[in-house]
Amino acid sequence: MSLGRNADSVTGRPAPGRVEDVRRGNLVRVLAAMVQARTDPNFRPTRADLASRTGLTKASVSSLVAELVDAGLVAESGATREGERGRPGVGLELNTRRGVVGMEINVDYISAGLLDLGGTLRIHRTLESGNRGQTPESVMALLAGIVGDVAAEASAAGILILGGGLAVPGLVDSSSGTVASAPNLHWRGVELQLDRLLPAAPFGTVLHNEANCAALAELWYGHGLDFRDYLFVSGEVGVGGGLVIGSELFAGPQGQAGEVGHMVVEPSGPACSCGGHGCLETFAGQEAIFSEAGIPPGTASVRLARLGELLASGDAAAISAVARAGRYLGIAAASTARLMNLSAVVLGGHFTPMGPWLRPALQRSLAEYAPGIVGDARVEISELGQSAALLGAAGSSLRAVLAAPFSLTPAS
Amino acid sequence: MSLGRNADSVTGRPAPGRVEDVRRGNLVRVLAAMVQARTDPNFRPTRADLASRTGLTKASVSSLVAELVDAGLVAESGATREGERGRPGVGLELNTRRGVVGMEINVDYISAGLLDLGGTLRIHRTLESGNRGQTPESVMALLAGIVGDVAAEASAAGILILGGGLAVPGLVDSSSGTVASAPNLHWRGVELQLDRLLPAAPFGTVLHNEANCAALAELWYGHGLDFRDYLFVSGEVGVGGGLVIGSELFAGPQGQAGEVGHMVVEPSGPACSCGGHGCLETFAGQEAIFSEAGIPPGTASVRLARLGELLASGDAAAISAVARAGRYLGIAAASTARLMNLSAVVLGGHFTPMGPWLRPALQRSLAEYAPGIVGDARVEISELGQSAALLGAAGSSLRAVLAAPFSLTPAS
Repeated sequence: MSLGRNADSVTGRPAPGRVEDVRRGNLVRVLAAMVQARTDPNFRPTRADLASRTGLTKASVSSLVAELVDAGLVAESGATREGERGRPGVGLELNTRRGVVGMEINVDYISAGLLDLGGTLRIHRTLESGNRGQTPESVMALLAGIVGDVAAEASAAGILILGGGLAVPGLVDSSSGTVASAPNLHWRGVELQLDRLLPAAPFGTVLHNEANCAALAELWYGHGLDFRDYLFVSGEVGVGGGLVIGSELFAGPQGQAGEVGHMVVEPSGPACSCGGHGCLETFAGQEAIFSEAGIPPGTASVRLARLGELLASGDAAAISAVARAGRYLGIAAASTARLMNLSAVVLGGHFTPMGPWLRPALQRSLAEYAPGIVGDARVEISELGQSAALLGAAGSSLRAVLAAPFSLTPAS
Repeated sequence: MSLGRNADSVTGRPAPGRVEDVRRGNLVRVLAAMVQARTDPNFRPTRADLASRTGLTKASVSSLVAELVDAGLVAESGATREGERGRPGVGLELNTRRGVVGMEINVDYISAGLLDLGGTLRIHRTLESGNRGQTPESVMALLAGIVGDVAAEASAAGILILGGGLAVPGLVDSSSGTVASAPNLHWRGVELQLDRLLPAAPFGTVLHNEANCAALAELWYGHGLDFRDYLFVSGEVGVGGGLVIGSELFAGPQGQAGEVGHMVVEPSGPACSCGGHGCLETFAGQEAIFSEAGIPPGTASVRLARLGELLASGDAAAISAVARAGRYLGIAAASTARLMNLSAVVLGGHFTPMGPWLRPALQRSLAEYAPGIVGDARVEISELGQSAALLGAAGSSLRAVLAAPFSLTPAS
C-alpha cells in the first residue's frame, strides 16, 4: 500500500522528489545493519558485509558510508579484514566519539550519563537530592549543573554530544516537554525548559516517562533479549511500569500506558497518591514496604540498605512486607496477563535487590490467580539497577539519531 | 522505508514483479474509498469521485472498477449524477448481491446471519440450544443446519456467499481453526471442521473469539463512531472483552488479549471457572448476578427476563446484584484505564438490558478508583444486543473480502 501511496498510481514509479526519500531510507538501512551486526561485539562489518546485509549494491553502500563518515556517525575502525572475495575490507563501527546524554529526575536523586553511539555508558553521575515538592526550576538548575559536568567531561574526552533524553516519574507529553502529572514530585502541568540542558546538541532533549525508559533499557540491554512480550514493573517511590509487545514499548493512545502502579489490587485497600485507593503502589511502593517492615523514616537509600540487612538476617516483618508486595505484584501481573495476553514479567528498580524474597511470593500469586498463564521461568529480575531509566532515556536518543542520520548529512 | 524495501536500492524504481502488487493495492484503495463514501448512506460515488478520493487517474479508476464489477464486488447503482465537470457519472455501490455469513456458538444458543457487502444484515436466525458439555461435533452439526437454511435463503434471494466468520466464547487460534479453551462450553483443544460450514465460499470460514467480535461490531456499527480507544466488556455466561485502540482491535501477542472477565477484582473472591479466583466474571457473569439476585436456575433467556422484571419493579436484591456487578466492572475498567491508557468503556451483551441500573454503579466505581480518568460521558451501553458477535464475525469476513479483492479477479 505504501508503495502505491508514494508512487505514480499506474506505474508505481516514484516521483522525482522521492529519490531523496530513498537515499534517506538507505542511510537508515545501513545504520540499522551496523546496529544488528553488533550482536557479536568483536565484529566490525566491512562495506561488503553491509551490502550483503542490506541488499544494496556495493557502490551504493560506499557512497552512503562516505556520507555517514562525513556526518561523524560511522568511523573506520582501522582494522582490516579479509573479504570473502577481492580486496580486504576496512572494518566499520558506529563512531564512539559521538554520544547522547541520558538524564533522570527522581524523587530523591538526579542523574546524568553519557552513552556513546556504540552503546557504552561512558560517564554516569548521580546526586542525592530531595526533589519532592521542590520547584521544577530549582531541580532543573541542579540537573543542568551535573549535565554541564558530564558535557565538560565528554568534551575533554573528544566526544561530541548529539542529543539527550530526560526521564521523570510521571505522565509526560513528550511533544511539548510537559510533565502532566508527577504525584510523587508534587508537579502537575509543568513545562520544563529542556532546551537549556544541551543547547548545542542537534537532536535536543526529549522528555520521557521514567518507567517506560526503564522498560526500554530492559528491552535493549536486559531481559528483552529473552522475551519479546512482557510486563516490566519498576519499584521506586512510586511503582511504574512498561508494556513490551513484540519488542516494542506499548505507549497507549496518549502515550501514557503502563501505569501498573495504579491498578486496583485490593478494593478495600488504603488511599493512594493518585486519589484512588487499593492501588498496587499502596502495597509495593517504597513507603508501603518500609513502613510494613518497621523501618523508620529517612532517605530512601538508607532505608533500602536497612531493608536489605533485615531481609538477609531473616527478619520476619521485613520478609512479610516484601512477600506482601510480591503477592500484590502477582495479582496485578495476573490481571495484565489476562487482559493483554502477556506471559512474562520483569521486575526492576527497588524490586531488584528484594528479588530473592519477592520472586517466590509473586510466583505463588501468579499460580493462584492466573494458573497456567505465567510460568515460574517467565518471572525475571532486572540486573540494570538504578541506571535503567537513564540508560533507556539515552537509548531513546541514540535511536532517534540512528533513525534520522540525514539531519546530520547534507541533502543530495 | 517500505518504498526502499520493495524497490531497486538506488533509483527506488519498482522491480517489474511489483507492478502486479501496485494493481492489487489500487483495487483495495478503490474499495476502501467506496467504504469511506458510505458514511452518507445515500451517496453513490462515481468513477470521478473515486479518482478524486484515491488520487488515481480516472483512466486507472475506470479500469480498476471494471475489474471489480467483473469480480462481482461492485455494481452500478443505475442512478446517474452530474459530475462537477464533463459527462454525468454513473453511481457505484458495493454489490448487495454478494454477502458473507456471520455465525455464533454460545453457551445457550447458536445463530447465523447474512450480511451483504453493503453492510446490511439481511437474514438472522437464532436457535436456543444448551451447548455446555455437548460435543463439538453435535453443536457444529446443528450450526451447519441453520447455516444451510441461511445459505438457501440467500440463494433464493440471488445473493452469492463469499465467506464467513464464526464466533465462539473462548480462546481461539484462527490460523488452525482450533478452540484452545472455552471453559463455559467445556471445550479444550478442539479443532472445528470449519470447511463444512460454507464449502463453496471462496474465502472460507474463519474462527474468532466472541467478545472480540462483539467489540469489532461495536467499533464498526456502534459506539466506535464516538470513540477511537475504549474497553468493550460483553456480558454472557462468561464475561469477555475487547480492547479497541486507534479504532483497531488490540489482539495481543498471541491474539488472546481482552480477557477482562478474568482480571482479579477481589483477591479474596470466589473460585472461577478459569482456575483462579476473585475474577470479574465471578461478580459480573450471568450466574453470579442471577444467584445474587435470588433468581432460581433455568435457561438464561428466562432468567434474564425475570431479572428485567425484578429490576423494573424495584426489587432490592436484583438492584443490589446488578450494582455489585457494576462496582466490580468499574474496578476492572479503572485498572485497564491506568494500564492501557484507555479512557472510555462500552458495555454489551447481557449488560445492555441492565444498563440503567448498572451504569451509575460503574460510574461511581470509576470515580472512586480512577478519579479524573474516565468521565461519566465516556461510559456507554451498546445498542447492538445479542447480534453483536455475529455481526462482528460477519464484518471481519466482509473486511477480508474487501482487503483481498484480487482473489476474485483474474491476475493481469
